[in-house]
Amino acid sequence: MTFETLRRECWAANMALKEEGLIVLSWGNASQLDREKKVFAIKPSGVSYDSLKPEDIVIVNLDGETVDGSLRPSSDTPTHAELYKAFPSIGGVVHTHSRHATAWAQAGRDLPCLGTTHADLFYGSVPCTRQLKDSEIVGEYEKNTGLLIAETFNTRKIEPFAVPAVLVMSHGPFTWGKNAAEAVHAAVTLEEAAAMAAAAVALNPEIPGIKQSLLDRHYLRKHGKNAYYGQK
Amino acid sequence: MTFETLRRECWAANMALKEEGLIVLSWGNASQLDREKKVFAIKPSGVSYDSLKPEDIVIVNLDGETVDGSLRPSSDTPTHAELYKAFPSIGGVVHTHSRHATAWAQAGRDLPCLGTTHADLFYGSVPCTRQLKDSEIVGEYEKNTGLLIAETFNTRKIEPFAVPAVLVMSHGPFTWGKNAAEAVHAAVTLEEAAAMAAAAVALNPEIPGIKQSLLDRHYLRKHGKNAYYGQK
Amino acid sequence: MTFETLRRECWAANMALKEEGLIVLSWGNASQLDREKKVFAIKPSGVSYDSLKPEDIVIVNLDGETVDGSLRPSSDTPTHAELYKAFPSIGGVVHTHSRHATAWAQAGRDLPCLGTTHADLFYGSVPCTRQLKDSEIVGEYEKNTGLLIAETFNTRKIEPFAVPAVLVMSHGPFTWGKNAAEAVHAAVTLEEAAAMAAAAVALNPEIPGIKQSLLDRHYLRKHGKNAYYGQK
Amino acid sequence: MTFETLRRECWAANMALKEEGLIVLSWGNASQLDREKKVFAIKPSGVSYDSLKPEDIVIVNLDGETVDGSLRPSSDTPTHAELYKAFPSIGGVVHTHSRHATAWAQAGRDLPCLGTTHADLFYGSVPCTRQLKDSEIVGEYEKNTGLLIAETFNTRKIEPFAVPAVLVMSHGPFTWGKNAAEAVHAAVTLEEAAAMAAAAVALNPEIPGIKQSLLDRHYLRKHGKNAYYGQK
Repeated sequence: MTFETLRRECWAANMALKEEGLIVLSWGNASQLDREKKVFAIKPSGVSYDSLKPEDIVIVNLDGETVDGSLRPSSDTPTHAELYKAFPSIGGVVHTHSRHATAWAQAGRDLPCLGTTHADLFYGSVPCTRQLKDSEIVGEYEKNTGLLIAETFNTRKIEPFAVPAVLVMSHGPFTWGKNAAEAVHAAVTLEEAAAMAAAAVALNPEIPGIKQSLLDRHYLRKHGKNAYYGQK
Repeated sequence: MTFETLRRECWAANMALKEEGLIVLSWGNASQLDREKKVFAIKPSGVSYDSLKPEDIVIVNLDGETVDGSLRPSSDTPTHAELYKAFPSIGGVVHTHSRHATAWAQAGRDLPCLGTTHADLFYGSVPCTRQLKDSEIVGEYEKNTGLLIAETFNTRKIEPFAVPAVLVMSHGPFTWGKNAAEAVHAAVTLEEAAAMAAAAVALNPEIPGIKQSLLDRHYLRKHGKNAYYGQK
Repeated sequence: MTFETLRRECWAANMALKEEGLIVLSWGNASQLDREKKVFAIKPSGVSYDSLKPEDIVIVNLDGETVDGSLRPSSDTPTHAELYKAFPSIGGVVHTHSRHATAWAQAGRDLPCLGTTHADLFYGSVPCTRQLKDSEIVGEYEKNTGLLIAETFNTRKIEPFAVPAVLVMSHGPFTWGKNAAEAVHAAVTLEEAAAMAAAAVALNPEIPGIKQSLLDRHYLRKHGKNAYYGQK
Repeated sequence: MTFETLRRECWAANMALKEEGLIVLSWGNASQLDREKKVFAIKPSGVSYDSLKPEDIVIVNLDGETVDGSLRPSSDTPTHAELYKAFPSIGGVVHTHSRHATAWAQAGRDLPCLGTTHADLFYGSVPCTRQLKDSEIVGEYEKNTGLLIAETFNTRKIEPFAVPAVLVMSHGPFTWGKNAAEAVHAAVTLEEAAAMAAAAVALNPEIPGIKQSLLDRHYLRKHGKNAYYGQK
């Protein structure tokens, strides 16, 4: 993939986040990886979505060092880099402060799977991480955030593609996918599932969550070799 | 009705769902029946609303088999087919994952009739189904969803035209009407009634619900032979 | 005022309701009175806002009988008529099913004055009526709704211009003003005040409400002979 | 700075408030200071945002007296003036009745810092003032509101630039910054943080709030001499 293509796809994903209503001011960023070249394209830090152009996108390596581009990459770049290193087959990462997903992250609660909207993409609860320790915050904070996400999936034995999203406690959501566009799709789904779950829990605090058989059915009709949703 | 007309009306109903704000990503679908020809037009599976064209709409028979069209029909096609078979006079069906109606479905609660907004279209509570059994989920899931809806209306002795909507537990709403446009109208009304009822219940968990006489008055001023709402 | 002017002002108020986001489908209506001619202009029944034209507006007398126009007037016309008869100096009436105001009406609760947003227009709580009796519902329902509103203001000794809004229990809000534009203004303010109050009550169920001196100050800086808000 | 520049920047900030969705009707106002000339530009009172033009903006001195312009300045002008006098290095002030921030103000609760969205701009809780006393309300109410805000920051030993926002009890938020554009930025952030915090508290009433080390990290990565967020 040329840098130009990488930039354009990364830019398009960032603009899609804005169009889907997940972005307030300049909060949030999408990146797109070229796993062969071991570089990824990411939004520059603190740049307004209104003026963002494909050529503003920064190309960095997996240590987060700029390879091409004149602007500073997002301050969250080390988190993206750690996710690309920890989850070998992902090709896109998104971070937002979308309202309802962030509310669950602030509440420190896993987002439970209460229905098929959630089950169509996330095969079970979306985990909320533990708090970072003071030493992790004082140190390489953004890198440690990425390591924390990887730890969460390792400890809880969750496949990154089975649940392509996480809630970082006191912070907000990260999502991923095969490419940046898929990570955007996951960010949109997560936000809507988070809003619905909050409304459902308010109506019935005792909801047990979706049945395992229904979770299996919905997730597997969209994913895996027997999937039958969408066009071939 | 020609296939072209059927497609155009089905397409228009799908686009109206999007315009009314009931659709996130590509979730949801509307279908329109030609009861004489025993075929219906339905949205193709997983196609984006942004690019949806009338010619993309698929024509299927009441067994859900494609009669005309090159794309795969919605994965929910068997549910639509069962509703057309179970409810003899309906001509349009809509399925969405609209936020507030889905929240009630996830909470497993009937949507109570708390006011005239609801009563103008729904003559009493909108029922929430039981959970599907594992055997129903593992088997012909989408068809069984349609059968479950029919069972719910039979068991609870609700006329499908008196309450043209249902909440499928852990899933979301289906609505119907004489044609697809009416089913869209019901989907919009259901979503707003669901949002209002959630807000009302939060303000007063003990609301008894609307008086029977007021329910009668509002429903009957819009429906039945003495209706006096709208233009003649 | 010519019928043409009356129609145009009524039409503009109806369109403003839609633009302000208070209207779902065709729910809601605004009317404008010519007190000298004892006629008022009102939205036709069940007509879509998208196609509404000034010439569609119906002119009716204070018995709700059509004086000019070819469409049926709103089914709520008798309510508007009773308000014009009961509240001698008003010149415009609005009815909506706006989400948050309707939620309070469904909850059967007065909307308390919790802050200056509310106090700037409403001098105290917006009252919620009692339930209509069965005999009032079976009889001239819409007319009785108007009489109920008047009764509420009489019994509770509220000046119609001090609180230009009411919540009709199990139904929704009516607002009024010197003309239809003012009634729209009141409908927008009511909806926002209702949304804020619901959010505030959720955060602190024990809020005592605004201080009397602050209510006086805010209401009187906009209203009455010492008002100093806005341009002269 | 010429009056023309001052007006244009003040006007642009006011229009940004509207575009960001913080304004209902004509509620809210932004001002921009020229500290050398000891004058500030402010929105005229009660003028619609739809028709607001740069030349409508009023120039006033720090006693709130009009220096240039033909319209009446905002009735909140004395509050802005007191803030400019009390907080020596600010150059812009914004007042809105944005929904969620106002709900916290009506609830009489400080807005707690529950996550990084908040911490990126506000170094700790956004304080809610005490109620104004009757004598303060009956007297120079708007001026006293400004003095109350200053008192709140003095008493609680909060640096105005560490937390550039306040919730005035029973009223709503004021925010500030180096200029009007920064004050708008703070108003947008406050509204979103208020919405998220309300949602988070509903999900978990016992949230302890963000860790001090994380608050430090996020605030300081955007502010102060070691800031590394954004472009240089």
